[in-house]
Amino acid sequence: MNKDKRKLIKMSLEGVRIEMPSQKPIILLKEAEGNRYLPIWIGAFEATAIALEVSKIKTPRPMTHDLMSNILKKLGCTIKNIEICDIKDNTFYAFINIKNMKTDHMEIDSRPSDAIALAVRCTCDIYAAEHVVQSAGLEIQSIEDEVEKFKDFLDHISPEDFKEEDK
Amino acid sequence: MNKDKRKLIKMSLEGVRIEMPSQKPIILLKEAEGNRYLPIWIGAFEATAIALEVSKIKTPRPMTHDLMSNILKKLGCTIKNIEICDIKDNTFYAFINIKNMKTDHMEIDSRPSDAIALAVRCTCDIYAAEHVVQSAGLEIQSIEDEVEKFKDFLDHISPEDFKEEDK
Repeated sequence: MNKDKRKLIKMSLEGVRIEMPSQKPIILLKEAEGNRYLPIWIGAFEATAIALEVSKIKTPRPMTHDLMSNILKKLGCTIKNIEICDIKDNTFYAFINIKNMKTDHMEIDSRPSDAIALAVRCTCDIYAAEHVVQSAGLEIQSIEDEVEKFKDFLDHISPEDFKEEDK
Repeated sequence: MNKDKRKLIKMSLEGVRIEMPSQKPIILLKEAEGNRYLPIWIGAFEATAIALEVSKIKTPRPMTHDLMSNILKKLGCTIKNIEICDIKDNTFYAFINIKNMKTDHMEIDSRPSDAIALAVRCTCDIYAAEHVVQSAGLEIQSIEDEVEKFKDFLDHISPEDFKEEDK
């Protein structure tokens, strides 16, 4: 993909939810300046890693994403931002954009869940490519609409329709 | 701990097993030149991460420990070795020893499961401190003994006695 033409949308993490009846965790990203939401089904471990950090729960020992964040810090690296860059065959793809002492920019291929678990630890920005939000986003106009549309969405889609990112 | 006095034992990864009735995964390390085994209870996610790599099963997308290994490689770092360095209140502690372009040696505090999941991806040596093997190891003289002693050990200990490393 031509990177110059890749329009990025700033997203905020609305939360991690476990939806019934699938009982599978879902990340919900929201367009920072708009009404589009991007739902991504993820694994239970990655969901826990995100939820622990968002809830500011400290574990006695470093969990896997804490370790990764600690390694980066000790190596003098910072995460500039992460980017949900593509969706192919219902699988989301992400980049972690790292700045280290040698190079200003280094892109690492990642699943969105790992990228978001790192982003919440490094409080960096989360972006999604416009074509990803266009193809997999849900537009919601108001809070009232939100509940109904999200319910409707969850009634009509299953994790099997929407391939889990880590399979 | 005085590092000069810290005697290290080279260990090999015997495998990851799920033991009944606890159904909790256990890593079994074996002294490379001896008969002592070191069992460590770990989480299911970390056990899967180790088992996937040991079994040479490739996933379509990078799993969390693959991502960590990819980040280290891209940053020009190598893992020299990992070390199960201590046990306190039945919790195992480990170090990941990293060599990067700036420093020859960098120690990162880790749970043993994450350290081993990285070690199998980087094919580096696994060490355990002598005092850890002395305190938590099982001495097994022959294959016949092994089965009986391991069964006996599993009959008389539960994960609650032997605190899981990631709690």
